[in-house]
Amino acid sequence: MTPEEARGQFPVLDRLAYLNAGTNGPLARATVEAIVREAERELVEGRSGRAYIDEMLGQREQLRAAFAALLGVDPLLVALTESTTRGCSIVLAGLGLTPEDEVVTTDQEHFGLTGPLHATGARVVIVDADEEAIAAAVTPRTRLVATSHVLWTTGRRLDVRAIRAATGVPILVDGAQSAGAIPVDVGEADFYTVSAQKWLCGPEATGALYVADPERVQVKAPSYMSQDGYEPSGAFVPKEGAKRFDSGWIPVSSLAGLLAALAVHPEWRYEAAAANAARCRELLEPLVEVVTPPGHSTLVSFRPPGDPTQLVDSLHEAGVIVRELPGRNLVRASCGWWTSEDDLRRLAAGLAG
Amino acid sequence: MTPEEARGQFPVLDRLAYLNAGTNGPLARATVEAIVREAERELVEGRSGRAYIDEMLGQREQLRAAFAALLGVDPLLVALTESTTRGCSIVLAGLGLTPEDEVVTTDQEHFGLTGPLHATGARVVIVDADEEAIAAAVTPRTRLVATSHVLWTTGRRLDVRAIRAATGVPILVDGAQSAGAIPVDVGEADFYTVSAQKWLCGPEATGALYVADPERVQVKAPSYMSQDGYEPSGAFVPKEGAKRFDSGWIPVSSLAGLLAALAVHPEWRYEAAAANAARCRELLEPLVEVVTPPGHSTLVSFRPPGDPTQLVDSLHEAGVIVRELPGRNLVRASCGWWTSEDDLRRLAAGLAG
Repeated sequence: MTPEEARGQFPVLDRLAYLNAGTNGPLARATVEAIVREAERELVEGRSGRAYIDEMLGQREQLRAAFAALLGVDPLLVALTESTTRGCSIVLAGLGLTPEDEVVTTDQEHFGLTGPLHATGARVVIVDADEEAIAAAVTPRTRLVATSHVLWTTGRRLDVRAIRAATGVPILVDGAQSAGAIPVDVGEADFYTVSAQKWLCGPEATGALYVADPERVQVKAPSYMSQDGYEPSGAFVPKEGAKRFDSGWIPVSSLAGLLAALAVHPEWRYEAAAANAARCRELLEPLVEVVTPPGHSTLVSFRPPGDPTQLVDSLHEAGVIVRELPGRNLVRASCGWWTSEDDLRRLAAGLAG
Repeated sequence: MTPEEARGQFPVLDRLAYLNAGTNGPLARATVEAIVREAERELVEGRSGRAYIDEMLGQREQLRAAFAALLGVDPLLVALTESTTRGCSIVLAGLGLTPEDEVVTTDQEHFGLTGPLHATGARVVIVDADEEAIAAAVTPRTRLVATSHVLWTTGRRLDVRAIRAATGVPILVDGAQSAGAIPVDVGEADFYTVSAQKWLCGPEATGALYVADPERVQVKAPSYMSQDGYEPSGAFVPKEGAKRFDSGWIPVSSLAGLLAALAVHPEWRYEAAAANAARCRELLEPLVEVVTPPGHSTLVSFRPPGDPTQLVDSLHEAGVIVRELPGRNLVRASCGWWTSEDDLRRLAAGLAG
């Protein structure tokens, strides 16, 4: 598949310089075709019966295997979720944290991590988003380090493997801006989340959670999908491995759409995305203050000269789609393997203009 | 709209005697058209920008208002969820139950209620699915009564208002088999769940939760959608009312599909569904042991003469879709307002044959 053919799968790119996979990736034609095909089948054939259920369960396992391949882990250690938020909630609620426990996190995390963390009642220790600062904050009361692999704000990539090794403390990694964007090896990470609607270009409300040792986490939000059997009291036999954390029914059209989405990514995706991000910063550096360190991720965040809201709106009117990071005076461009030189020149022209 | 026109909205009914809305309702053509329209729009226009987000948020509020109208409550007391399971989990996790607390439930509940209940660690008191048995089991340690409005197994309807009045204890009502099927007045109920993919014929993974007094329940699984602002620690200002319990991003195609689905139901739906269920039991009583009490719900559950799995499979081959209730030696037919005399005769013929 040539780069032009690969990019040609995404109709939105014909019209827009779509640089916001960090929110929602572009959708491929094959993805929407799969969604539509399944919705029309359900319309005519209904949504029940053994064949329907068996096919749905089979698609879930295909998906689990695909996520496992992405992360380089055993499929039995992967749960299917709707979001990174849900993945964080599953882990944080399941660790039995108390106000005596400490969790170290950074000042650059998304609410999808910090919200569920706050809800545990544990003491939240906030440090700079930096490997050494995280390690220095660990005490004997630290039960968990919780941080992003790639920060959604600055696009900085943290060396989560080094953090885990330096601290010896379990680590929950928010992978929303890494899985599908940069090569991920979960290594010694204990928990790793995936948001499939972003860099994997999947349907909304799809994702995954890797759990290295499922027996160590309580199932606090069980669903029909997460048990192998149950008693009238609700006492249940959890499914094997991380399947016990599956967060519920995934619409069959979303399963089909996501499987199609995962099939459109070329082998050279990570190299191309990194090259496009490097080219983006090259074009932007003369124009704005780029805050993302070079070579870190597929995000290019910058401090605009004027009001970020106005800038994002005016770029949108010019067909250039980027995102404001509210409250941080930053604008973020997301560069995928599908991004073209022309997309980036349009962004630069919008900033220069 | 005549009954024939109303029924004609569901293509699956042209082929099948589809009697399983208790699992997933039939989909209307308008529902799938809305899903397809939105998916194709996202394909071409992308999934970001202020207009996209504003429209999505507007659709969420339309949906909240529609659920509120269904339940006869203030929209501010309605949260948007993916399922009854999630609704139960939100409430049960948020009540701060301890092993010293008791929750009274019945021996006929779905795992979507009992699983999250078990996960709280509270003492689960299981009684017969009967108003008096529930009231008799309440002690000074009872923090909650948790039961279905219509039991998914036997189709029996419980008088939740009477239970609430007799016990004086907060009640969580699993409305999976009632909302959209029978007229619902939440009355003095404290919590009431809705599964929109069943009797409301919505897309999968859609639903709602009514919370009478949102301030009394902790937000244990916050999402970006549930807060009005937050600090780096994750401490947050919850949205007003029950919006703070919104369980996350709902795909825009699901929002559009559900709004379309809610618009297809005729005014006479409850009367017609009740009449169809009565007609169903009339046809079935000479053939099998019907266990659903007359006049209770839109479910007709019966004890088959032979093996229930084989029966459901052979009916399926004959184009009659019903559900086995595993482990209970029961088969369940779901009668909607869309159900025809012919559907019911096909079921009866399959049982007689």
